[in-house]
Amino acid sequence: MNIRLTILGSSSAVPTATRNTSAQFLQFLHFSLLIDCGESSIHRMIRLGLPYDKIEYIFISHLHTDHILGLPGLLSSYALKNRVKPLTIFSPQGLKELMEPLIGPTESLPYSLNWVTIDPEKSMVILDQELFTVETIPLLHRVPTSGYLFREKRRPPNIKKEAISKYQLSIAQIKAAKKGLPVQDANGQVIDNQDLVIESPAPRSYAYCSDTMYSETVAERVKGVDLLYHEATYLDELRDLAQARGHATSLQAAQIAQQAKVGKLLLGHFSTRYKDAKILEQEAQTVFPNTVAVGDGDCFGI
Amino acid sequence: MNIRLTILGSSSAVPTATRNTSAQFLQFLHFSLLIDCGESSIHRMIRLGLPYDKIEYIFISHLHTDHILGLPGLLSSYALKNRVKPLTIFSPQGLKELMEPLIGPTESLPYSLNWVTIDPEKSMVILDQELFTVETIPLLHRVPTSGYLFREKRRPPNIKKEAISKYQLSIAQIKAAKKGLPVQDANGQVIDNQDLVIESPAPRSYAYCSDTMYSETVAERVKGVDLLYHEATYLDELRDLAQARGHATSLQAAQIAQQAKVGKLLLGHFSTRYKDAKILEQEAQTVFPNTVAVGDGDCFGI
Repeated sequence: MNIRLTILGSSSAVPTATRNTSAQFLQFLHFSLLIDCGESSIHRMIRLGLPYDKIEYIFISHLHTDHILGLPGLLSSYALKNRVKPLTIFSPQGLKELMEPLIGPTESLPYSLNWVTIDPEKSMVILDQELFTVETIPLLHRVPTSGYLFREKRRPPNIKKEAISKYQLSIAQIKAAKKGLPVQDANGQVIDNQDLVIESPAPRSYAYCSDTMYSETVAERVKGVDLLYHEATYLDELRDLAQARGHATSLQAAQIAQQAKVGKLLLGHFSTRYKDAKILEQEAQTVFPNTVAVGDGDCFGI
Repeated sequence: MNIRLTILGSSSAVPTATRNTSAQFLQFLHFSLLIDCGESSIHRMIRLGLPYDKIEYIFISHLHTDHILGLPGLLSSYALKNRVKPLTIFSPQGLKELMEPLIGPTESLPYSLNWVTIDPEKSMVILDQELFTVETIPLLHRVPTSGYLFREKRRPPNIKKEAISKYQLSIAQIKAAKKGLPVQDANGQVIDNQDLVIESPAPRSYAYCSDTMYSETVAERVKGVDLLYHEATYLDELRDLAQARGHATSLQAAQIAQQAKVGKLLLGHFSTRYKDAKILEQEAQTVFPNTVAVGDGDCFGI
């Protein structure tokens, strides 16, 4: 099953000619998820042909306008299109109160909208689905902010086709083998489980960390993820400004990726002062080579 | 001096792959004006290269989300870019209260933001500049809604160059002639004013009427304007639906244009059910031939 991240916005604070403010569409297995929702996210999704009407969960990092201004339009569009599928929005406290004056009372919507308040100071599992979990990652920003970690669960191993005929396995034996329970051959000998099953692929994971200043706690939380999106608002020469504004530099993002031994690092949330994000990417690559400075519309599979 | 209208959004209610929700950028003489501000208006202006930072006046027709959701992002962007130029927003009552939770208290902005509440039930001059006026046009919609009429003032006539040398006119005489006061030649004979001056071009005008159902009062208010934008959400076969939702059909828009004897009619605010707005244009043209169904990014000069 597919895991596919599409960048909807990668500019910090204000949009540019090529970048919207923060938003990401995450196809995670058979779920459509939205992470942050800067202004014009719906336009990007429509124009990229993404199934925005299928989104079931929205994860908001914090309540700064560049991460939420696309929400009232999206939620209103759902209402106008008579959505019935329930929608759940995770966010730090206060989002409902900001949205309701614009979209009307939650109860008046044609779909069930659930506002879930998360605690941005704690790392906890906020969603536990059959195939994946979502955890919060406490971030260090000027207002309460949370990152999100999406983890696929380990799937049971698959039975080897040749083992079925070789050992004349019954359905019950196949089920037992997949669970790692002992299975006997015709002579009553226990068969080595490795002869019967193939391990499922390693579970995949994606972590979204924006907005945040450099934090070693973040590195611990995202340890070993396949894909890490970490904000990199500035070059490291503006490290003091980054710190003062609660942001990270591209070098710091790379240090987090290195410490956490992630598979690949994506940089985004760029200050509009950088006309070309290549210099941020190059700076990060001096520490963590497998780094990409994202652009709007870019897709990344895991 | 130039008058140039750029369509930023022409879809009703929700955006489509090619149309944003309602917004127009109006270059009126040396003023940059914004009429309505649907979501993503700032993105359109940036991408069309329009000087959105120069906007001094914003005119909001009504408080439905598809006409205002671009405002918090625009106002926040101005703040983040440390705008100092004052900004005035005209709208029916309640806009400030909707915006402040998102943009912060008006007093905290680095620029002076003036919220002017208009009375959507009255037609009155709300802005009287040296070179133009803006009047409100009461519209018939589900909530208090106002159109806006932008009128260039008649400029004084220009002096004929050949008259200056022929009659040896002094500066004082030129000024008098331009005001229509009597000017004498060397023999003390009053010169025919038409020999001295050329009339300035006829003052130009633009009227914005959205959202509204069919209203003959509107036709009276926009009598003789050069350019009329009138909403045409539906084809006339959905006249009852239009009436129920407080909207107009393309045929009704054309009837308004015909009754008001306007120069040119622009149709917009199309229901997303119409994949091609040509059919709305064609319907209107059966009554008022000089009609154009607008698209986002289209420009119209007067």
